[in-house]
Amino acid sequence: MSNESSNLVQNLEHHECWALLRTVSVGRLAVLADGRPDIFPVNYTVDGGTVVFRTGQGTKLSAASGDSPVAVEADGVDPETGLAWSVVIKGTAALVKSTEEVLETSSLYLFPWQAGRKDAFVRITPDTVTGRRFKVTDPMTWWTQISRSGRSAQE
Amino acid sequence: MSNESSNLVQNLEHHECWALLRTVSVGRLAVLADGRPDIFPVNYTVDGGTVVFRTGQGTKLSAASGDSPVAVEADGVDPETGLAWSVVIKGTAALVKSTEEVLETSSLYLFPWQAGRKDAFVRITPDTVTGRRFKVTDPMTWWTQISRSGRSAQE
Repeated sequence: MSNESSNLVQNLEHHECWALLRTVSVGRLAVLADGRPDIFPVNYTVDGGTVVFRTGQGTKLSAASGDSPVAVEADGVDPETGLAWSVVIKGTAALVKSTEEVLETSSLYLFPWQAGRKDAFVRITPDTVTGRRFKVTDPMTWWTQISRSGRSAQE
Repeated sequence: MSNESSNLVQNLEHHECWALLRTVSVGRLAVLADGRPDIFPVNYTVDGGTVVFRTGQGTKLSAASGDSPVAVEADGVDPETGLAWSVVIKGTAALVKSTEEVLETSSLYLFPWQAGRKDAFVRITPDTVTGRRFKVTDPMTWWTQISRSGRSAQE
């Protein structure tokens, strides 16, 4: 990393990553499906050094339930500093085999999953946890609204 | 899709997907890196049926610059209805070869990339564009804050 980019991007300590992961509940899950990346928003919670989310049937479950390699990213912006953060967990996803295994996890027992009978629970065990903090306005430039004018409707 | 889930998740029309993609400028890019998924936040813009973002050197560039399969997801919540949406583009990423190619794209010429001399531009050409609209509170249940109490600091 160059000195310039070092000034712009700060790597986060391990404990900072976990603390930030706990401040939000929506992340994005990247999986392999037929050898290609796919991506889904997920509601997750941090549980004992892992991340747990629920999902119904479908690509997300099939791609994430067989000790598959996955990545989960969460991000946010600190309203006081205006600095953004992004934390990425890379690891393997495995289906939580029984409801009891979920319910016996003390930190999870209160979540309101009334509609969850058909759903599966997936636990992601990290191999790596990395995080960065960075400015979003300058020079991690955001696209201006003005650049959106004069756009055709061809898409 | 079952009747029950049909009520919960609405598939979006193609034009709705593009319109929603234009309402935000931050998405998440999923790529393959060493055969495993990785994920990054990106500032993107919609340009003529493609999505363009800039990036510095690194995994994101190397994974996304060789006609690689990628997925980009953007999401948001409609403040009026409380409904969330998520749009996913799957396609291939290719490095934009010259600054002129970027600058000649009429809808992009105004963006303020003063700091972009070292940066690369990546264009994602979609194979598929899909989107969903769904409730986030019930039964796409969000984790409650109360479930976060009593958490150990073992992570």
